[in-house]
Amino acid sequence: MSKAVVLLSGGLDSATTLAVARAAGYDCHALSLDYGQRHRAELDAARRVARYLRVAEHRQMRLDMGPMTGSALTDTRVAVPEEADAPGIPVTYVPARNTIMLALALGWAEALDADAVYIGVNAVDFSGYPDCRPAFALAFQALANVATKRAVEGRPIVLETPLMHLSKAEIIRWGMQLGVDYGLTVSCYQADAGGRACGRCEACRLRRQGFTSLGVADPTRYFP
Amino acid sequence: MSKAVVLLSGGLDSATTLAVARAAGYDCHALSLDYGQRHRAELDAARRVARYLRVAEHRQMRLDMGPMTGSALTDTRVAVPEEADAPGIPVTYVPARNTIMLALALGWAEALDADAVYIGVNAVDFSGYPDCRPAFALAFQALANVATKRAVEGRPIVLETPLMHLSKAEIIRWGMQLGVDYGLTVSCYQADAGGRACGRCEACRLRRQGFTSLGVADPTRYFP
Repeated sequence: MSKAVVLLSGGLDSATTLAVARAAGYDCHALSLDYGQRHRAELDAARRVARYLRVAEHRQMRLDMGPMTGSALTDTRVAVPEEADAPGIPVTYVPARNTIMLALALGWAEALDADAVYIGVNAVDFSGYPDCRPAFALAFQALANVATKRAVEGRPIVLETPLMHLSKAEIIRWGMQLGVDYGLTVSCYQADAGGRACGRCEACRLRRQGFTSLGVADPTRYFP
Repeated sequence: MSKAVVLLSGGLDSATTLAVARAAGYDCHALSLDYGQRHRAELDAARRVARYLRVAEHRQMRLDMGPMTGSALTDTRVAVPEEADAPGIPVTYVPARNTIMLALALGWAEALDADAVYIGVNAVDFSGYPDCRPAFALAFQALANVATKRAVEGRPIVLETPLMHLSKAEIIRWGMQLGVDYGLTVSCYQADAGGRACGRCEACRLRRQGFTSLGVADPTRYFP
């Protein structure tokens, strides 16, 4: 059985991505990063999702992103925006975060002799983030094609981004078909310790719109 | 004054690279990674070198590379080879190590608004490592050109690999011209806690050959 490393934040997109990798027949090794994110409840959600979708293994790695200041997700002095975004790159962007996470996933994949790395990036809703775009995924694949021992031996690790071109509603529909329980996931950038969502940040708004436009009940637990 | 992030392991190549970045006029921010490497004395060496070359700042980040097993540098069950290498990629290769380190350096550079990231990779002596080759550096630059907010805004961070095509002797000559004290550096893969070198591993052999072929006294302290 072929192995895949799946980046699992505990949110809606990564849970769906894990289900997609599993449905593709991979033995899934989930990787969650504790990078001091404000919304630490997503790490608990990642554990629940990993168990529910029966991964072969779930690892949580600690990563000191303290030096990467200036993002609303890692710097408590920067507020999470609660209104529709200004054009440009959101303040929730964390410098090089997906590059770092994919690099770690690539290293673990090589150590496991896994054939693929899955990440739930999405260019439709989050096109504001440079490291969620098709050009980024292509460039990372080109790097992976030369960066590892496996690549030099002619077996590069493949980067899979199955959600890249889907809307939030399409992602939810696919995940429901694959049996994802979205009540286990946490998307909110400022979720409380119990995993309840604010309903106002960009992640909450996009998630809620996804359920609404699909005409499906939103299983998210919001603050009272 | 323009800033640069310099990856500083504490060995001969990275110390030279730091001196090169400094001579190029950069305000240097040195980054060392504690990834559980066998040769922990290099981290002490990195601190000495950073102080000696008067960096603006030196950060040591912890990184759990436990899952990336199988390398002689991180897995104590794998011995460091003490004879001339077999063809192919050495067992001291750590899966995706330079990809991970460069990703972290890129993130820190963006947070600092630094213009460049320096790494002392070298294709002449260490061409066995896939992530020390020109193709790797080019692919990482292409990734950096799309991965960050700065890149999207038209100011990508530049990857500098000044040692790529130099022999060890050429590296040492350049470093001596720039005032590097190689007695502060530790290259040995199995250096003892005091920073003394084995004289037998690949890193020691290449280093010693460099001093010998240059006709310069080798300042390395070896085991008794």
